[in-house]
This record gives sequence, C-alpha cells and structure tokens, in this order.
Amino acid sequence: MKISILTLFPEMFNIFNHSIIGKAQEKGLISIDTLNIRDYTLNKHKKVDDYPYGGGAGMVMAAQPVVDSIRACKEKNNGKVIFLGPKGKTFNQKMAEELSKEENLIFLCGHYEGIDERAFKEVDMEISLGDFVLTGGEMAAIPVIDSILRLVPGVLNKSESHEDESFSEGLLEYPQYTRPEIFEGESVPAVLLSGHHENIRKWRRLQSLEITKERRPDLYKDIILTKEDKKLLNSKK
Amino acid sequence: MKISILTLFPEMFNIFNHSIIGKAQEKGLISIDTLNIRDYTLNKHKKVDDYPYGGGAGMVMAAQPVVDSIRACKEKNNGKVIFLGPKGKTFNQKMAEELSKEENLIFLCGHYEGIDERAFKEVDMEISLGDFVLTGGEMAAIPVIDSILRLVPGVLNKSESHEDESFSEGLLEYPQYTRPEIFEGESVPAVLLSGHHENIRKWRRLQSLEITKERRPDLYKDIILTKEDKKLLNSKK
Repeated sequence: MKISILTLFPEMFNIFNHSIIGKAQEKGLISIDTLNIRDYTLNKHKKVDDYPYGGGAGMVMAAQPVVDSIRACKEKNNGKVIFLGPKGKTFNQKMAEELSKEENLIFLCGHYEGIDERAFKEVDMEISLGDFVLTGGEMAAIPVIDSILRLVPGVLNKSESHEDESFSEGLLEYPQYTRPEIFEGESVPAVLLSGHHENIRKWRRLQSLEITKERRPDLYKDIILTKEDKKLLNSKK
Repeated sequence: MKISILTLFPEMFNIFNHSIIGKAQEKGLISIDTLNIRDYTLNKHKKVDDYPYGGGAGMVMAAQPVVDSIRACKEKNNGKVIFLGPKGKTFNQKMAEELSKEENLIFLCGHYEGIDERAFKEVDMEISLGDFVLTGGEMAAIPVIDSILRLVPGVLNKSESHEDESFSEGLLEYPQYTRPEIFEGESVPAVLLSGHHENIRKWRRLQSLEITKERRPDLYKDIILTKEDKKLLNSKK
C-alpha cells in the first residue's frame, strides 16, 4: 500500500521509521511519503493561513494551498483523500479493515482552527479519531495510518497475528500471562498451565465475555451469545 | 505539567519536539521525558517479552520490567499511572480536561500482544483511544498526551483559544472561511462579510446545530436546545 500525507509537519511522520511499520517499509510492503502543504502556497510570504471571515479566535488554513497540494499529490497517488477532523465518522476497526484493502490512500492533516470550507470539494472522506480536540490532524493521522497498515498482509509476522485480539469479534481480549509462573507472590491461573487446550479456550472465552460485560456494556449488548457462551456464563453463578 | 512516558520506543516521542507542544516545552510550560522499559529488564539478553502461558499468537510483555520501570519512574514523578489499552475507558474531551489539571502524569505504552496481567497492580487508570487496534500503545499515547497538553494554561496562545471548538459544548464546529472572498468561483457566505456580529453568531450557531444533527445524531440527542436554538432551527423550515 502506498500512503501519501499532506501536512505542515512532515518530520512528525518519522515516527513510522520505527518498530513494525518501519520494518514493513524496509521490506517494501508499504510506502509512506509526505508532501509539505506549505510548498504549494502561492502567497509570497509562504503563508498558508489567514484570519477567519466573520471574526473569532484562531487562524484558518486557506483553500488554495490545500487544494493545490491535493491535486499535485493525485498525479502520483490516485487514492481516496481522507481528511482527519472532528466532523468525520468516528474511526473504528471495521473502517481500518476496509481501508487496509485500498492500494493507495492520501491523508490530509489540518492545523490551526480548521480548513477553509471550500477546500473540502477535493476531500472524499472525513474521519474523526474520537470526541476530543488535538493540536493538529497529524496527531490523528498517526494512529489511523498505523491501525490500517498493520492489517496489510505481511506487515505483522505470524507471531503477531491479528486473530484473537480486542474488537476482532466485538469482544475485549482475555488477560495474558507470561513467565515466571509466580511473580511477586501472584500465580498464573492454573488452567493456563494445564496444557488442556479446550479448557484454556473456554476459560479465555469466559474471561473475554466477562471483561467486555463489565467494562464495555455498549459492545456487550451487541454480541450474539452462543449456546456455549451461555453455559460458560451460567457456570459462574 | 510533567509527563513521563514508559515505552520500548522513546524516539517515537520526538514528535513532541515540533509545533505547538514543542514550543510549550521550550517555554518550560510542560516537560516530557521518556524511560525505556528495556533498561529495567533483569533478563540477561535484555528481553522484555515471552510466550503467553496457555499458547496463542503473539508475545506478552513480562511483568518484571514493566513493574520495575513504573517504580523507578515514580521516584521522580508521583503522577497517576495511565496505561493505554483497548480495555480502558474510551478517551474524550472531558477526560482530557480533567487530566490537564494534574501536575504529573505517567503513561505506560504496551507493545506485543499485551502486558502480563500481574503488572496492572501498578496501574491507576486504563485509557482506550477508540475501538481499533494499534501496533503499540505509543500510537495511542501520542494523541492522548497532545490533547491533554494543549489544555495546559499558556500552551495555546490567545489566537489559538479553545473556546468555540468542536465538542466544547457538545456540538461540532461551524464551517470556517478565510481569504479570498471568491475561491474557484465559490463565495464566502454573505453573512460572514456583513460585519453584523449578532447575525454571524446566529448563523454559526445554526450551522453547528445542523452539522451536529446530520453527522453526529448521538451527540445531538444530548444537547439541550435553548429557545433561540429552536427559533433558529424553525426559521430554516
């Protein structure tokens, strides 16, 4: 997958030179490039923002550099243009899965108080990271891009498989334990040391159901419980 | 505010050397430091992860380096320990506002398939960025920290004030426009050029109400409409 990012702060995306996404770039599985919106402004002082019409706090990014940088980017990347902003659809795992199937994507990061409304004619989709405010779209683009790219085949190696993880079946993940068996007086649950795969599977399923029920009743209410789930939950009563 | 971050990838947090948060650090309004969890492992090969008990994909971060790095950090920073993970409370602007009042905060970023459950005894609070999966807690810590720090007094300058922004009153923000008056044939709405402050205020309020109603009915249903709001909405029918 090829990702292009339009931003005033290209150096922020050096974050993708590390860890899993960094390795996937080295292997050539994915490519990430940045375009500096400031390089496209026709303003002689290289300004990209101006006061909002009608008054009010903050500066607004002008339409011209935004629209021209998108058009320049599209010459090399014919992907959907995604703007990160509070008015977008709230990002979730389903969106990450859908977008991970695209060959090309363009991300537009706003800064200041917003972008001139007339630039949105070049935007295909608006995504919100959640109901909170950030200093800039870069801070939202980073987790969104990370979440999409880790689903591109080959980016995670076999040992990092994305089965059994939170949200994959609408459930939170069961608790995990690793060596040593006893840590500061606390033991690993005996079932996990039993080697009995079927009991381990049932224990984990019950843990996932219970944790989701307790912490995320909003997710839990949409889960269609299987016969086995009901039996597991009843066995605890 | 002093923020300490426990991570396997300290260099990822160079992102905060730029833009608004970078300037706030230079001014001494906030400080951000990182501790590498790997520096605290007692494993002779410097390993911090191991296979999960009970089998399954992925590696689990061991309790020892996590717990010891938290304890080391607490000697210099007595803040709440916040773990970024999918089982946490979903982050929102209200949480950002509350956490921005703290003097110290410690953020713990997990990697791999999760952290040994026995490490959670040192964690005070778990925050989830949203219902999607990331390569590591760093990708969630970045927007969460950004969103908190921008609310620390002095971090945003007057022209970047955080009144009138999305979510500040449970509403999405009205559209913004800046120069020129006509861009590629599209004009700025006439009311914004009128200089009539009261009409501008009403127009913006109506826009906010309509955009929120259309795009985020879940937020809209919780808004208590004022008499004026109802009048504005009726005037459009």
